[in-house]
Amino acid sequence: MFDNVKEILEEYKKLWAYGYAEALMAWDTETYMPEADASTRGEVFSVFNELEKQVYLKISEKLDKIDEEKLSDEEKGMVRVLRRSIKYYTKVPIEVIKEFTKTTNESVVIWRNAKAKSDFNLFSPYLEKIVDLSRKIADYLGYEKQPYDALLDLYEEGFTTEDGDRIFNTLLPKVSDILKKVQEAQYFPSSHELESVQYETERMKKVNEFMIKLLNMPTDKFRLDVSAHPFTIRISGSDVRITTRYEGKDFKETMFSVIHESGHAIYELLIDPRFEGTPIATGASTGIHESQSRFWENIIGRSIQFIKLVYPTLKENLPFLSKYSEEDIYKYFNTVKPSLIRVDADEVTYNFHIAIRYEIEKRLINEKMKVKEVPSLWNDMMEKYLGITPKNDAEGVLQDIHWSQGSIGYFPTYTLGNIVAGMLYLKIPNLYDLVSQGKFDEIKEILKELICKYGATYPPKTLLRRAFGKEYDPEGLLSYLRDKYISLKGIG
Amino acid sequence: MFDNVKEILEEYKKLWAYGYAEALMAWDTETYMPEADASTRGEVFSVFNELEKQVYLKISEKLDKIDEEKLSDEEKGMVRVLRRSIKYYTKVPIEVIKEFTKTTNESVVIWRNAKAKSDFNLFSPYLEKIVDLSRKIADYLGYEKQPYDALLDLYEEGFTTEDGDRIFNTLLPKVSDILKKVQEAQYFPSSHELESVQYETERMKKVNEFMIKLLNMPTDKFRLDVSAHPFTIRISGSDVRITTRYEGKDFKETMFSVIHESGHAIYELLIDPRFEGTPIATGASTGIHESQSRFWENIIGRSIQFIKLVYPTLKENLPFLSKYSEEDIYKYFNTVKPSLIRVDADEVTYNFHIAIRYEIEKRLINEKMKVKEVPSLWNDMMEKYLGITPKNDAEGVLQDIHWSQGSIGYFPTYTLGNIVAGMLYLKIPNLYDLVSQGKFDEIKEILKELICKYGATYPPKTLLRRAFGKEYDPEGLLSYLRDKYISLKGIG
Repeated sequence: MFDNVKEILEEYKKLWAYGYAEALMAWDTETYMPEADASTRGEVFSVFNELEKQVYLKISEKLDKIDEEKLSDEEKGMVRVLRRSIKYYTKVPIEVIKEFTKTTNESVVIWRNAKAKSDFNLFSPYLEKIVDLSRKIADYLGYEKQPYDALLDLYEEGFTTEDGDRIFNTLLPKVSDILKKVQEAQYFPSSHELESVQYETERMKKVNEFMIKLLNMPTDKFRLDVSAHPFTIRISGSDVRITTRYEGKDFKETMFSVIHESGHAIYELLIDPRFEGTPIATGASTGIHESQSRFWENIIGRSIQFIKLVYPTLKENLPFLSKYSEEDIYKYFNTVKPSLIRVDADEVTYNFHIAIRYEIEKRLINEKMKVKEVPSLWNDMMEKYLGITPKNDAEGVLQDIHWSQGSIGYFPTYTLGNIVAGMLYLKIPNLYDLVSQGKFDEIKEILKELICKYGATYPPKTLLRRAFGKEYDPEGLLSYLRDKYISLKGIG
Repeated sequence: MFDNVKEILEEYKKLWAYGYAEALMAWDTETYMPEADASTRGEVFSVFNELEKQVYLKISEKLDKIDEEKLSDEEKGMVRVLRRSIKYYTKVPIEVIKEFTKTTNESVVIWRNAKAKSDFNLFSPYLEKIVDLSRKIADYLGYEKQPYDALLDLYEEGFTTEDGDRIFNTLLPKVSDILKKVQEAQYFPSSHELESVQYETERMKKVNEFMIKLLNMPTDKFRLDVSAHPFTIRISGSDVRITTRYEGKDFKETMFSVIHESGHAIYELLIDPRFEGTPIATGASTGIHESQSRFWENIIGRSIQFIKLVYPTLKENLPFLSKYSEEDIYKYFNTVKPSLIRVDADEVTYNFHIAIRYEIEKRLINEKMKVKEVPSLWNDMMEKYLGITPKNDAEGVLQDIHWSQGSIGYFPTYTLGNIVAGMLYLKIPNLYDLVSQGKFDEIKEILKELICKYGATYPPKTLLRRAFGKEYDPEGLLSYLRDKYISLKGIG
């Protein structure tokens, strides 16, 4: 290792320790913190943020002296990740960052109110500000072709409008076709009576404990707790935690949140432990991270083969399942229905929801579309893709928190997650043999070698080329959807 | 506030944020941390320690420029506490600190083994090293009269050998007399059959939840969890946590650990919230802290008046209590028996255990007594004070972990806790009326005004003079023991 990289990593140890403590604090905030401490903890976080910024600026000076030619792939990765972290601090003027933070802090509150009243006009002045500031930030960050590219890059390194257009243009017409066939065939119902059946939380906890055991999650490095919204957090490579929630009915919700978050956790746990304490001990991107969670949740968890493994445990703890067969549960887990709300969407219709948001963000940022045009564009696209129209803004353009938080460019990563999960589906032809036999450690080993072990050594596109010989390719996802929803593979 | 104090407090914010994060990490380590993360977390702690040292040294320079004359009591307190924190770093050479850390890290392991084999000779070379290094450290820290004073001061600011001698010389003969009378009267048994009765953990948790409710612990700022050893930790003034353990029998153990730790927590929660983020948002000393926990545990919790409040809940959750009266439980809570093990000792005999350790520490440090003489001195004093002799080193000189950790000077603070609790007993003549009526908020108000609200504004002796007009005075403790154990006040 070259001396200047060594020096940088020495300095980085501080950021690592801060990050470790912040992760634990963030976890605790959502799980066990006594509520009265929230504002004090907020102050602690801002002290840490300030300290971090100082360390980043110090590292920034050292980075300028690095001769990248001589570095190993991993060292290059470390330098790349650090440069990305520093970019925001060094390129965007502090007044702009402050204004953006102030605006988004306010607008989250306004959005909540606007959503409650189902009135986009209350939110639109804030969205205008956020869009203006985001365009400014894009200009400061810099881009090759389109300003939206600079924002996309914040979540998915190197991902551009060009990529997005290519993906959605390929994906959407083919998925429309799949959706039509699924609806005609009527094998998959549009809803299921189990959605309204109540469960006992204590029994459902046992089901979730079984899931974790089945997936062979390493309990000496992993834990499951309860929080209002499920999440995964890496404290270190030997301490990765997930949460779920128990809403009392529709048991698949908590079960799939556990499998989804376990997928994120598996990624973090499989990153090469040699990287601990360096900037590459993290996922390659938001989209790649989401590919792991969705691969485990959807492609594995919602398969008939997986259901066969968990069926006895489900029946043991959820007595109301006595009259349902494995295939009944398969249908309950895989309903297909064009619906208005993204978070309730199924595998077939989900990407339409993302396409709508992508198109709107793109037009707002690249084409300076007016914010006031957003609701009608939203509704038109809902009608075009899914044949339904929101009755009001709350179930339409106001449904997601993301824009109010200033997250423009984030939504596409959900679809990228689905796409990369689909690429994995094609890459592992014996996947469902392994699932049938409960050989989840073998599946993990494959994921580790293809994706996980590298952490953030490579940017996502490079990682994908190394693993699959190509970048984000929707063909895998389309094959998966066709096999499952049209050919009914694995059934009967 | 003067500018230089302001500057120091600005710098101190970092230490505050570090301390907050470290407290949460320490809590998590004992409660929820996945075990494989222990060594990584150790590394995080050492990064924080190094960062803290740097901030302290920076503050140290600023402290030199302070003109104390012009400061308020609180500002003086802040400066005093900071000077004490810095003293160790600045006066003791780094090589000595490192050697001490290395020695104690090793000697804890050796002690464990020596205790298991009940062989003091295995441990004595390490104790010799620890004593030698402690003497050195005492010399570096400086003292007026005796080197032991420098070590006592680490835990109880300003407390000296002279104070210790005075206290134990007053206390011991009178307690001997009390013990003799208690044994003659035979009201308090030496053991109780309830000690071996098993309870259901889930039911006992309900009892402990009731205790917390009865003591009106503020659940928005406080929580109770489970750990191997009970402890209290302040994360901030709005986040104070305690733990207990459930051993499955002898229910008073977990119940009194909850009350004891709640006493510590009440202290932290009653410190003036204006002090949050400054060095005085902490207890005045180890002894003063222990006075609060022991006041709640022993003087309140083990009283007949308190038992009357909790009796219905105890019976409801512990069905085996059906045949026991309130007075039976009083006797179970207050057995008196000269015994070999400090942690099992009762209120009457407890201070003899401390006197023995105090005398040994004093002779080792001040009089250069040889370590090899320790076991026989220990056994002679056990015989003299309690009329019993350990059969082996494990139940004698090797029983406590403290010396192996390098904590010489700590033990006396346990007796100081008892003494100050006794001073509070005398100070609140209507205490048991308040207890009978469950007016714990009124008791807290009194403690707050006398002790708690000041945090570490004043050193312990000053705090005591302000509250009681005198320093550590054993008369209160003696009155309490006589009233309870000889006059049987409150009974029959």
